[in-house]
Amino acid sequence: MSVAPRTGARITGVDVHDVRFPTSRQLDGSDAMNPDPDYSAAYVVLRTDHGPDGHGFAFTIGRGNEICVAAITAHVPLITGLTVTEIITDLGGFARRLTGDSQLRWLGPEKGVAHMAVAALVNAAFDLAAKVAGKPLWRLLAEMTPEDIADLVDWRYLTDVLTRDEAVELLRTAEPGRARRTEELLRDGYPAYTTSPGWLGHSDQHLVRLCEEAAEDGFELVKIKVGGDLDDDVRRLRLARHTLGPDIRIAVDANQRWDVDTAVSWMRELAEFDPYWIEEPTSPDDILGHAAIRERIRPIKVATGEHVHNRVMFKQMLQAEALDILQIDACRVGGVTENVAILLLAAKFEIPVCPHAGGVGLCEAVQHLALFDHVAVSGDLHGRAIEYIDHLHEHFTDPALVVAGRYLAPTEPGMSTRMREATLRSHAHPHGKVWRDTGEVST
Amino acid sequence: MSVAPRTGARITGVDVHDVRFPTSRQLDGSDAMNPDPDYSAAYVVLRTDHGPDGHGFAFTIGRGNEICVAAITAHVPLITGLTVTEIITDLGGFARRLTGDSQLRWLGPEKGVAHMAVAALVNAAFDLAAKVAGKPLWRLLAEMTPEDIADLVDWRYLTDVLTRDEAVELLRTAEPGRARRTEELLRDGYPAYTTSPGWLGHSDQHLVRLCEEAAEDGFELVKIKVGGDLDDDVRRLRLARHTLGPDIRIAVDANQRWDVDTAVSWMRELAEFDPYWIEEPTSPDDILGHAAIRERIRPIKVATGEHVHNRVMFKQMLQAEALDILQIDACRVGGVTENVAILLLAAKFEIPVCPHAGGVGLCEAVQHLALFDHVAVSGDLHGRAIEYIDHLHEHFTDPALVVAGRYLAPTEPGMSTRMREATLRSHAHPHGKVWRDTGEVST
Repeated sequence: MSVAPRTGARITGVDVHDVRFPTSRQLDGSDAMNPDPDYSAAYVVLRTDHGPDGHGFAFTIGRGNEICVAAITAHVPLITGLTVTEIITDLGGFARRLTGDSQLRWLGPEKGVAHMAVAALVNAAFDLAAKVAGKPLWRLLAEMTPEDIADLVDWRYLTDVLTRDEAVELLRTAEPGRARRTEELLRDGYPAYTTSPGWLGHSDQHLVRLCEEAAEDGFELVKIKVGGDLDDDVRRLRLARHTLGPDIRIAVDANQRWDVDTAVSWMRELAEFDPYWIEEPTSPDDILGHAAIRERIRPIKVATGEHVHNRVMFKQMLQAEALDILQIDACRVGGVTENVAILLLAAKFEIPVCPHAGGVGLCEAVQHLALFDHVAVSGDLHGRAIEYIDHLHEHFTDPALVVAGRYLAPTEPGMSTRMREATLRSHAHPHGKVWRDTGEVST
Repeated sequence: MSVAPRTGARITGVDVHDVRFPTSRQLDGSDAMNPDPDYSAAYVVLRTDHGPDGHGFAFTIGRGNEICVAAITAHVPLITGLTVTEIITDLGGFARRLTGDSQLRWLGPEKGVAHMAVAALVNAAFDLAAKVAGKPLWRLLAEMTPEDIADLVDWRYLTDVLTRDEAVELLRTAEPGRARRTEELLRDGYPAYTTSPGWLGHSDQHLVRLCEEAAEDGFELVKIKVGGDLDDDVRRLRLARHTLGPDIRIAVDANQRWDVDTAVSWMRELAEFDPYWIEEPTSPDDILGHAAIRERIRPIKVATGEHVHNRVMFKQMLQAEALDILQIDACRVGGVTENVAILLLAAKFEIPVCPHAGGVGLCEAVQHLALFDHVAVSGDLHGRAIEYIDHLHEHFTDPALVVAGRYLAPTEPGMSTRMREATLRSHAHPHGKVWRDTGEVST
């Protein structure tokens, strides 16, 4: 596989930063399971001796970010001294090198902190590859051959449901429309939906105002957090539906709050407000639970994925018909390579993908995957939208841009994952200015 | 719930040790996925200002043990300053306090490194409770009321399959036989099986000699590692069957090596040697994959569990009829409390439990759960045995004792999880004597 020219450069080191944003002070991001998140990144720089560096991160919500830092650091000996060419000409092999370490594998396998560390490093490698190629990542991926795309994937544990050959075939089918869809994305962007109005920590007044703004901004889908208190949810959804009118879709998100029966009864109470999907109704591990809920609350759709930890779990979610909407996350599974596997699985089952984003940097990273999916995999925008929250984008050198309810296609080389140097300094935990000035530490 | 007298003591600190054993030097523990493990523990001491301390650990196989240390450390602020009475009179609440931290939860939820850290701390709390009560842990648990046992469990995500009320009913049914079964265990012990002969790193000659020893030692079940090379497996299983004769059962263990179709075809090649179970034929996350394999290789049984990360996964393994044998691990899920949930689920589905052990300290810890299960939950020894490997027990103050193929019931207070002080010093990584003398470091 060859995605970029040889550079002669070498990885000279891997910097790992503990970066945290004190978002809990305003209750931005508050939901039924996460009342007070401090959005954080275990942030990685793949340093090279010349040419561009690679940037990636794992996303957390505060305490424990240092565990991800330790997990990334544990993988560094697998990388140091590799040449940039070795990495970017075999990105699938690079990812398997990280997930395949025989001792580190015990810590997952392929789940939790250890896998989030792999995500940070794999995404940094793709950012590097795209920069070397001088292209935004979505274009680099979308211009690869079907065979090269298939070689990114670790096919282990997938072949009972999707083989490499089937995937290549599926990618070939999409090839003729690539050029047209690329042009359309460059012209029209990709649909976004907004979660800004819906946090549980907001007052009713604030909810209404933000719903009004969302409608004015051109969003066709708004997400509201639920699952704290049923009476509150009924009141808030009534307000949201009244404000947004019948044509703007309202998704609701319980953030894993319920058991199966509670999910069903709670959603029946909210059905009168015509919710489009219920997101994370129960444990992200509960494949059969999601399937049971889906069966019992039709036609309300079931969505999940931001906490689904790897391709094996998504494979089963699809096999069990547990999902109507599949939500990839750029940094929870093992990075771009595993997300390519998940996009291929979703395409085979013809399930629309609506990526999870928000937090810090997740919009920046995941937009590349959705755009690649549209150009080279699914070729379909029907029922699809990337989550968007207008928050913390100013900390990135190439922030995600959403205009009139659509993500503009990124044009700068890379994965848009580079954080500003000033932010790395000011938000370093626990000694950066932002944390030092208040005396608060997130532990 | 009250399991022990009030002590007045307080948790004054939590010590966390990175302890590693250079087991890769002899290829003990080598299998198809783990060619060179260095058995390790992220070891915890709950220090109190008077009375006993509590000891627990997470088990890893070397690199990354320091990540578990970091993860345990991240939970310490949730514990420091609690009184011993607060912990031991509400052990279920203590465990939920650790799994429920709203920011740390993001790192799982309830899986991987973060959950292994919870296991170490929860087990340490149970060790402490049993020491305060002056009883071995299995007796402390087995003498609790059905209601108190049920209160250990976090019922979230289980109630579609097993409710607290059903569990109490199930425990009540087992109550009349408790005294008799306790006496029988004290007299006869609990069946063990041995994995010592079966490591892939051993020569054929060594395999035969260890099989002979296993038969002489009275084991009725021997486990052989497979999945590296089919011809080797056929040759090794032929030797093992020839040596052991037709009456000693042979289990085989692929350590997650295969995809579904490979598992089926490989096991068909080994069927002539009458394997009792195939363990971990594929990804531990692949519930539906295990179910498919089980369906296609009957009457060979399917066993898994040492890498199944929480009660929600085990719930589905049982719902999907994916298992014939359920293998709990003392330190992978969230400690004693979650293992109680899993034992209750297994009892409801009438699936025998054969605990995973070996490594370092896993025999010591898990024997208490199996004995408790027998006395108070399942009441049945049919088809059950605890894994045993005669290795590294000398590092514990109260080592597991296996005689004539049976675990002797522990009689010392606690969970048998206390490591010798000298071992904590000599095997400290990377500066203890064992690592310093060789210059080797496991990173």
